[in-house]
Parts: sequence; structure tokens; C-alpha cells
Amino acid sequence: MLKLYYNPISLNARRVWIALLEKQIPFEPIELSLDGDQFHDDFTAINPLQRIPAIVDHGFRVIESLAILDYLEAKYPTPSLLPSKPEIIAMVRMVETVTVVELQPETIPLTRPLVGLEVDPQKLEAAQQRVVNILQFFEKLLDEQNYFAGEQFTLAEVVAGTLVPSLPLEDYPHLKAWSEQLSQRDSWQQTEASPEAIKAALPNVRKLLERRS
Amino acid sequence: MLKLYYNPISLNARRVWIALLEKQIPFEPIELSLDGDQFHDDFTAINPLQRIPAIVDHGFRVIESLAILDYLEAKYPTPSLLPSKPEIIAMVRMVETVTVVELQPETIPLTRPLVGLEVDPQKLEAAQQRVVNILQFFEKLLDEQNYFAGEQFTLAEVVAGTLVPSLPLEDYPHLKAWSEQLSQRDSWQQTEASPEAIKAALPNVRKLLERRS
Repeated sequence: MLKLYYNPISLNARRVWIALLEKQIPFEPIELSLDGDQFHDDFTAINPLQRIPAIVDHGFRVIESLAILDYLEAKYPTPSLLPSKPEIIAMVRMVETVTVVELQPETIPLTRPLVGLEVDPQKLEAAQQRVVNILQFFEKLLDEQNYFAGEQFTLAEVVAGTLVPSLPLEDYPHLKAWSEQLSQRDSWQQTEASPEAIKAALPNVRKLLERRS
Repeated sequence: MLKLYYNPISLNARRVWIALLEKQIPFEPIELSLDGDQFHDDFTAINPLQRIPAIVDHGFRVIESLAILDYLEAKYPTPSLLPSKPEIIAMVRMVETVTVVELQPETIPLTRPLVGLEVDPQKLEAAQQRVVNILQFFEKLLDEQNYFAGEQFTLAEVVAGTLVPSLPLEDYPHLKAWSEQLSQRDSWQQTEASPEAIKAALPNVRKLLERRS
């Protein structure tokens, strides 16, 4: 059976978890507590870069959430989470890439005060401005559609939908409605981190953020 | 005709430029000097996130290098830069994502001294260690193959091949041979930044890095 190495508060891992549920692929979840067990030899053998998520499917190892999602889409194509029209592919990939490459790094300064770490006010303000730009971009892309690709739920939702709903969306009515709709899905409800899991993970999040500073 | 917004020293833009050449897609290159013209209204209308590369193809706008590459692959499928076997897709996507999400940010501390900016020695050492881990991972994935996907040149080369060859590869014989082979391709030779272009761009690189610190 496919093995998923994850942690309940990791949004990178949650994407893969949601895709597995949406595609109804049976899997064995293996939780890493991230208090150092990602550096142990047995996990380093699976992912030398020591990050979750990772999957092992019939002995085949894949790392990096975006790569895992594309592997799952190719290996288990039904239901499809990626349409084939070039313009729709562009839309889905823009949302995926902007989320992971642009938005996610900007949320790090925003997270620091939440775990009791200092943050340079200038850095915080610059990050907040970048987040606004990105949310405005997404708001316009989404427009009045149900999903970024129109009527079809795709990887754009799986990727952006694990980060964007945690941001303040008062000024973005389309994103807000989209976010509320996603929160009703079984796959979102089953993978939502409990307050206890979040509380238990805070010291490790703090340690990981300290290392990045 | 397809328009490519680029700068000759941007490796994110070079990826798209290489893919256009490899696929023999006619295009009009539009150079941004990055001394502020990426913030002008006319470019912000194309990319509100104010980054290169961006393309406009028959009036359709795509941003983010990875998204543009996937759009081009879907819209102009021959020659193919992405095989369809799930395990090969996983390989190509791991190389693409590790390059952009993991390796590229780690090279920022390494670049700072080159443009006369200070760097915290601890940060530098941590970044160097991460780069070693990633190169070891790539060296093992590539193994004795010509390309990451085996015999086929793919997006793995287009993406990693614009960054990895600029790193010291003495300890990685497979990556070194792969890198030398790529440097012989027309698409690499035509898109290589001239020493003059690099020299002219250094003050702007410095400004962009200062903003990130």
C-alpha cells in the first residue's frame, strides 16, 4: 500500500493527503513529529532532503508536494485533477506555482510573531504588501467561477486551498466564497489540523522558523 | 507572435527562452532591464507580481517559469519535453521542484558576497550544506544516464540545467558530464549571458538582493 509520510499541521503534506482522499487511493499514513525524526537515518533514506511530505508507492519514492501531486495524477488519473486544455493548464499551474514559490515564503514573517519570535517591522510590512498583491491576483483569476479552472475542482484548489483560506480574506469576496466552499468538502474536513495538534506542534514550528532566520 | 518578457541574466527567464528554442516556437523577445521597469504600469498590467519571465501568446498571458513551461508543453507538444510514464513524470517534477523551491533560495546567500553584500557566516554555512545535500540527491538520481529521464531531454534539464551548471561540480562527476553536454546545445549557447550583460546587471542584482535581506 502507498505510504504517506506526513505531519498533521504541515500544509505541504496536507495537499498530498487531500489528493489521496479526492482520488480515493488507499494509503498508510506515517506521522513524523518533526522534533528531529525527519533527520533520522530511516527517513533520510527515503528523503535525503529531510522534508515531508514523501510517499513510497510500491517501492517507488517521490518527494516534494508538487511532484507527488503530478505523479498521483499520472498514475491514478481518475478522477482527474488536471484538465488538458493548454489555457486551463496554464491557469492551474500559475496558481500552484505562485502559491508555493511566491506566497508561501511571504507567510513566514507573518508566522513568526505567532510563535513568539521577533520580526523586523520592515520585513513584515514588505511581506504583507506582497501577500496583498498575490491575493488580488488570485481574486481576479478566480473571478465569479466556482474553481480556478471554471467548473472543475483541480490541483489549483488542492495547492492554494491549503494556504489561502488561512489568510484574512475580508477584502476578497471571490476567494472567501471559494474558501468556504472548500471547507465543506470531506477531504478538507478530514485533514484539518485539530487545535491540540497545532498546540503540540508550536515548539517545533518555532525551532524550524528560528533556523530559517 | 508570442511575446517573451525577459532579461538576459535571469535564469528563470532563460528556462522559458530555452524551451522556446528547443520547441522552435517563433517569439518576440522583450527585454526588461530590471532597474525599475518591471514596476511600470505597462508591465504590471501583464504581471501584477512584477516578475519576469512572462509570456503573452495570442493575447493569453502566463506568468511563473514553471507554469509557462507547462503551458508551452501543452500548446506546442512537439518535440515533447515531458514523457507520460508516471515514474518518469515523478523524476522530472522532483528535479524541477527541488531546483526552484529548495536549491534556488539556498543560492541567494552564496550570491551576496559576489555583489559586495555582507552575509552572516552561519547562514552561509547552512546554505552551503543544503546545496551539498541537493547536489548529492541530484547526482544519485541522474546516475549514469544522459538525462534525468534517461535518454530523453526533458523539462528536468531545462529547469535544473540553468542553475546547477553554475555551481562547483568537482565532487559530482555525473552532474559535471551532464552539465558539459548541455553547454554544447544550441539552445544553451544562444541564451548564455555575455560577460558584459552580467557586468551591466550587477547593480540591479545587488538592489534586488538588498531588498530580500
